[in-house]
Amino acid sequence: MRSTVDESPVSEEHKALVDQLCLRARAASLVLAQASTELKNTWLRNLAHALRAGQSGLVEANALDLVEARQLSSALKDRLTLTPARIEAMAKGLEQLAGLPDPVGRVREERALASGIQVQKVGVPLGVVLFIYESRPNVTVDAAGLCVKSGNAIILRGGKEAHASNRALVELCRSELARVGLPEDAVQQVPVTDRAVVGHLLAEGERIDVVVPRGGEDLVRRVAREARMPVLKHYTGNCHMYLDADADPAMAERLVVDSKCSRPGVCNALETLLVERAWATRHLGGLLRALKLKNVEVRGCPETAALGLAAGVQVVPANATDWDTEFLDLILAVKVVEGMDEAIAHIQRHTSGHTEAIVTGATERAEEFLRRVDSAAVMVNASTRLHDGGELGLGAEIGISTGRFHARGPCGLEELASYKYLVRGTGQTRA
Amino acid sequence: MRSTVDESPVSEEHKALVDQLCLRARAASLVLAQASTELKNTWLRNLAHALRAGQSGLVEANALDLVEARQLSSALKDRLTLTPARIEAMAKGLEQLAGLPDPVGRVREERALASGIQVQKVGVPLGVVLFIYESRPNVTVDAAGLCVKSGNAIILRGGKEAHASNRALVELCRSELARVGLPEDAVQQVPVTDRAVVGHLLAEGERIDVVVPRGGEDLVRRVAREARMPVLKHYTGNCHMYLDADADPAMAERLVVDSKCSRPGVCNALETLLVERAWATRHLGGLLRALKLKNVEVRGCPETAALGLAAGVQVVPANATDWDTEFLDLILAVKVVEGMDEAIAHIQRHTSGHTEAIVTGATERAEEFLRRVDSAAVMVNASTRLHDGGELGLGAEIGISTGRFHARGPCGLEELASYKYLVRGTGQTRA
Repeated sequence: MRSTVDESPVSEEHKALVDQLCLRARAASLVLAQASTELKNTWLRNLAHALRAGQSGLVEANALDLVEARQLSSALKDRLTLTPARIEAMAKGLEQLAGLPDPVGRVREERALASGIQVQKVGVPLGVVLFIYESRPNVTVDAAGLCVKSGNAIILRGGKEAHASNRALVELCRSELARVGLPEDAVQQVPVTDRAVVGHLLAEGERIDVVVPRGGEDLVRRVAREARMPVLKHYTGNCHMYLDADADPAMAERLVVDSKCSRPGVCNALETLLVERAWATRHLGGLLRALKLKNVEVRGCPETAALGLAAGVQVVPANATDWDTEFLDLILAVKVVEGMDEAIAHIQRHTSGHTEAIVTGATERAEEFLRRVDSAAVMVNASTRLHDGGELGLGAEIGISTGRFHARGPCGLEELASYKYLVRGTGQTRA
Repeated sequence: MRSTVDESPVSEEHKALVDQLCLRARAASLVLAQASTELKNTWLRNLAHALRAGQSGLVEANALDLVEARQLSSALKDRLTLTPARIEAMAKGLEQLAGLPDPVGRVREERALASGIQVQKVGVPLGVVLFIYESRPNVTVDAAGLCVKSGNAIILRGGKEAHASNRALVELCRSELARVGLPEDAVQQVPVTDRAVVGHLLAEGERIDVVVPRGGEDLVRRVAREARMPVLKHYTGNCHMYLDADADPAMAERLVVDSKCSRPGVCNALETLLVERAWATRHLGGLLRALKLKNVEVRGCPETAALGLAAGVQVVPANATDWDTEFLDLILAVKVVEGMDEAIAHIQRHTSGHTEAIVTGATERAEEFLRRVDSAAVMVNASTRLHDGGELGLGAEIGISTGRFHARGPCGLEELASYKYLVRGTGQTRA
């Protein structure tokens, strides 16, 4: 029997638990903020080694989760599974992180002023990061690596279905922290899988500096609604590509197919294709045939449907909601437009601000598109799938932000940092 | 008669009003985001001219506020008063803004990657800024100038007591916007002074990109509690100065007096002085005499009191709350400490994270203090009063942030900007 009265002791326990997590994270973060780059890198490399050495134990822990996951879809089970190859990929990722510059202590700007004071803007950690995510256990290690390298303590709240795998991974992180003399509590896992505990964590606006939710739109919306601290997030990736009058047909086909098909279930996959009318008349039929070969379902405007019919490709008539849908599947909405103005107007109305691309041979139109479209990443003659921390040269990322505050686009080490001003004087006053 | 039932029509009117303000601000911000630096600078210079030309009208509007303000304290009335000199200062401020670099379109970073793509991180405006502030009407023009120059639309909500002055200033801003062909709604004043409307504004988390509250702690706390959008803010400035064993006595006296006395009512004024024991024995008596000459009331620890007695200066015994108090007055808390560890421990416990300073002749201790103390600005041998956008070389500021997210310290044009990634390729794919 569960009633609101029954729940209050549980709630009190959760509060006490969250209180402990926050206290420990803050204490660890103060030590970690002062840790040398060398020590943090040693931890990253040792952890990579420990993952490889501990492979069989990790696969065993993962097996416990997989037994519980019998009733999940095979796609979800696949995401949940730890294999030797995936463990090796995690280890490699940590070694790459060790090679990236440390944002802590980095001089972002400096100036000597007429008054004689020297002003530096120097990177410092954000402090305590709460990371809320779903299934894939490899994300646990990525996020812990990013946070520790950037001097932040992390509180990990993974999906229930990966709890045993995550526990084993977090234990490795912690024992390796202790081994190099860094505080274990720099990496903590929320020890209970109860959903209610998340509400208590999100209320800790003064003790947690940022929350990063990664998962389905419902999860992210819940976090954004309840969080009393800043949220680094995107809800959806309703990404657009515009094929301009001057688009090279072969390049257009390659980019559309890569953007839609290389991994349809992710946020930077293409969802809506906008095609300039004259180009469409000449080349859209061929493009639709190429998409058919890749098993892509096209949901098109009436002009697209007519061109599809002529090319022998069946086009599903698009309804109004298709332009706002992140399909996350082999489905593409296609619309013929008059030109760039109509394309940009469509994008401004429907975009989630994640990634938009233009394919064109005309430099001035490319530059106009880059200037007028205001999304986290705007691309010319490149796949939307390149909007990713690794692909854009940032190294790893904890997520992609479509917010405008603090960080936009891929969030890597620099985006997990803040800064302070250091002022060196020789007795300067204001008066 | 007021009841909750009676209030709902008022609330509906406020909602409609806020809806209009937000719609107009967003429309204006989209145009403003594309405006050239030259056009924005022309507006700044024209507005400076219009302020000077419209001086008598502004003083008249201000007189209406001053009539209503009869019962206010003389300090508040002084802050409210517009004089020709203050109008000239506003005009000069705008001309300075015109000379500062535009954050919009600025290339923050760029890299060419092995894949052949060119990646740029380019400044864009935040979008719509809500500015909530108290009495001083000159702040109206500063904030409007900063926001328009950084490509943001601003919604101004000033104090009730300055409503007529602000209305006249905002009308000038808007007519000058229209005259150069920029959207008038880039600068809007909330037309009613009713407090309830603020709640509706703060609920607009999707349509207002940031709120900047500037005023007393109560105002800032209310905004932080209710805002559904990011808040750039500081609650208080409980600033510390630590006089180290090697502090030059003359420099220490000059810096303490400037930090405390040059303007005691502001956030970067000194509130607590920490003094190394050996230094205190030799020099604190003299320093206390200097403070007495400046009419500073000293609230001291027992050791300070004893040294004061020996020097013929009366010291009020400090109580526990004094260490957490932002006096905003000619009052200074003074404590003798064992050394830097105790000083930093005291700071970590009591600081509001605004400004801390050390006075020392020992470079290694200065550097240790800079490294270990984590406040928005940390200073060596300089007055805490230098923590200010102008003094640190940023130009004007809309406020000072003690938050760690997005911006810390003085918030000027750059801090009113976000960025987007521009990716220029030649057909690059992910797969």
